[in-house]
Amino acid sequence: MPKEFKIAKGVKDWYGKDAILRNEIKDALKRVFERYGYNPIETPMIERAETVKFKGGEEIQKEIFTLKDQGKRELALRFDQTLPLARFVASNKDVKFPFKRYVIGEVFRDGPTQPEQGRYRVFTQCDVDILGVKDMIAEAELLALAQDCFKELELGNITVKINNRKLLDGILEYSGVPDKDKFNAIIILDKMDKIGIEGVKKEINSLLPKNTVDKLIPTITKAKNNNETYKKLTEIISSKNGKQGLNEIKQLLDYSKSMGLDFIEFDPSLARGLDYYTGTTIEVYLKDKSVVKSAVLAGGRFDNMIGAFMGIKKEIPAVGFSFGLERIAMILKDIKKNIKLSNTELYLIPINTAKECLKIACSLRNNGLNVDMDLKEKRMGQAITYADSLGIPYVGIIGEDELKENSITIKNLKTREQNKIKINEVCKYLKAK
Amino acid sequence: MPKEFKIAKGVKDWYGKDAILRNEIKDALKRVFERYGYNPIETPMIERAETVKFKGGEEIQKEIFTLKDQGKRELALRFDQTLPLARFVASNKDVKFPFKRYVIGEVFRDGPTQPEQGRYRVFTQCDVDILGVKDMIAEAELLALAQDCFKELELGNITVKINNRKLLDGILEYSGVPDKDKFNAIIILDKMDKIGIEGVKKEINSLLPKNTVDKLIPTITKAKNNNETYKKLTEIISSKNGKQGLNEIKQLLDYSKSMGLDFIEFDPSLARGLDYYTGTTIEVYLKDKSVVKSAVLAGGRFDNMIGAFMGIKKEIPAVGFSFGLERIAMILKDIKKNIKLSNTELYLIPINTAKECLKIACSLRNNGLNVDMDLKEKRMGQAITYADSLGIPYVGIIGEDELKENSITIKNLKTREQNKIKINEVCKYLKAK
Repeated sequence: MPKEFKIAKGVKDWYGKDAILRNEIKDALKRVFERYGYNPIETPMIERAETVKFKGGEEIQKEIFTLKDQGKRELALRFDQTLPLARFVASNKDVKFPFKRYVIGEVFRDGPTQPEQGRYRVFTQCDVDILGVKDMIAEAELLALAQDCFKELELGNITVKINNRKLLDGILEYSGVPDKDKFNAIIILDKMDKIGIEGVKKEINSLLPKNTVDKLIPTITKAKNNNETYKKLTEIISSKNGKQGLNEIKQLLDYSKSMGLDFIEFDPSLARGLDYYTGTTIEVYLKDKSVVKSAVLAGGRFDNMIGAFMGIKKEIPAVGFSFGLERIAMILKDIKKNIKLSNTELYLIPINTAKECLKIACSLRNNGLNVDMDLKEKRMGQAITYADSLGIPYVGIIGEDELKENSITIKNLKTREQNKIKINEVCKYLKAK
Repeated sequence: MPKEFKIAKGVKDWYGKDAILRNEIKDALKRVFERYGYNPIETPMIERAETVKFKGGEEIQKEIFTLKDQGKRELALRFDQTLPLARFVASNKDVKFPFKRYVIGEVFRDGPTQPEQGRYRVFTQCDVDILGVKDMIAEAELLALAQDCFKELELGNITVKINNRKLLDGILEYSGVPDKDKFNAIIILDKMDKIGIEGVKKEINSLLPKNTVDKLIPTITKAKNNNETYKKLTEIISSKNGKQGLNEIKQLLDYSKSMGLDFIEFDPSLARGLDYYTGTTIEVYLKDKSVVKSAVLAGGRFDNMIGAFMGIKKEIPAVGFSFGLERIAMILKDIKKNIKLSNTELYLIPINTAKECLKIACSLRNNGLNVDMDLKEKRMGQAITYADSLGIPYVGIIGEDELKENSITIKNLKTREQNKIKINEVCKYLKAK
């Protein structure tokens, strides 16, 4: 195959098992999102470049795919689902608050790829957000939703980490980090799950003086439980912002407790490397990190973004998070035994009865069965091998005898069991299996 | 709102009714595609520029969005779903033939937009294709599938037009169109449904000499029924290619007849303005053209494309078509009375019972109900107005009395009927409605 026709770098085709699994995950997430009262919206993959570049640090700017239309307008492919949401809400007078929406769709990042961690240049983010609720009850609802999503997907046990950007600001201030270095420090802290505490210390030592680092590291280190961590920080954090952050954490822990969500871990080192967060930050990890080490869900509060898009100072409370479809799929592919290879339930094999078989196939389909048929009139053995290789569980043979008797010879490809079944009873017969 | 943050030109946000309707259409199409034995694949939105530009005429080249990655590689956003499919199959040794796949996803065209006909720069194509079947039985199955899709969507009566590119070549040859003008003539013929026969005549007169046009126009004009059209053409078409095309048309009409698909119209003027078709061409229109005049489904046979991608001369039979999601949605929005505004079934209003209500909401959700709740503790009147404006059919009031009695006061927002229902009976009560 000529080289110029290869797939582009950093992207992937999903087919067979993978494609079916991706659809199952999307459907499961949609079900849970809608159960919580979130409704769908779809924003376009192409935005004005200014929209996508808004609020992104230097690192992000480099990874934005930009392009021009025939009218020479500067455009960009969306980098995440959050900026398009803010742009949508800011420009849309119909929106009623609180506004709860979900979106499942591709985002684009022109950065390094890491297929073994589910990281591609085009990947799918599944986002839920609540706009217009300042109280931590919004976060509590989202955490309950996250738990239900993981249950619905049978993903295994999770660790939910929470922190608060106001508190983190307070901690940085307390530790003596100058304003100009604050966001860079946050970017380094955000690498914790990739490079570990030693890696973080090393990088942060080259940004900040030793005495600052010596104060910062113990302060962001969590105590033996949420209460202890909270107590420790209330004793040292004195800035208004920092105190407000601690207060928000306390409220969220209270709500979570009353909902029975007892798996939440308050971790003051949790950072999230995006500039736009203003309050709660959230990351969810699988307890079993053998397949995917990184967060499978992440997000937080961004109360200033929508107002900024509107060009006004007004705060419009907003909080949400994003599931990474590729990572969830990697995990499920590892732990699930029976991922379907095909959605087809029955493969019809006509023996010189193609025209009649076309009609029979349609009538079975009208009864709700997923039916494929041999369109090439292969030899029976070949046709069976084909159906089997596709993962279709049953074949149905239709020769002249079967036609006369209004029947199909149904063969289970696993057990090799074979029965002649009346056409109008085939659906019932297969559904009972 | 600052101008630089407006939505990009030619694209659209889908929300509320529109977004719910789009999901319903996608789900319905997926159901039918899988019933016919097609399995999902997803190819990336970004391909090498060479892949997307392959086989496109000049008009198409202009409308391809191109971009570069950080490594200066020439990339393009996919223009359709067919070229990526061919690239995928050509590069993938796992593929077993026949290969039947569907895809539902966005494609990108940097051309003029026409929102009133559902034409945008980013739009969604829902494609089904069969690869590896040369016989017209593949087309017959696809036409049956198309009919079932239109039924499932309750889209109303349709007209299916078929033609054959080999035959059209034969007709152009018979009429005396020189080889170099053939594809330009096809592009003009393809405008028939936009500019009508008079418009076509006018444009084609400036391409071809009068005696050629005088021979061509009557030849592509259909007779009073399929048999007559076929008979008329067999009498005059003598090229091998043209005869083969006629023969394929006859086979397809025979299959269709034996399946009871009696709404198919053989129209020798049907062109399809893409270079890659090699046999059957198909377009489906709604009988009622008051909302959408253009085709809602279109496609055909492209037996040479995959071999070309592989850099070999081998023919790999391929046929398929594409539903335009935006157009289907426009039609349904026009004819359907009850498109849902929200998927939420119940809106809970806590009266100083927010924490308890969070828990109750979760337990109802676990029973499969789509539940939203007032997270802002609004006044009851406000909360009811909000739920009503969102199109949620029921509200459930939870005050201290209800808590004591393990009940919710359920109010139907349409009839204003109100009943106190035990919490564990709420799902049954609402599902029975």
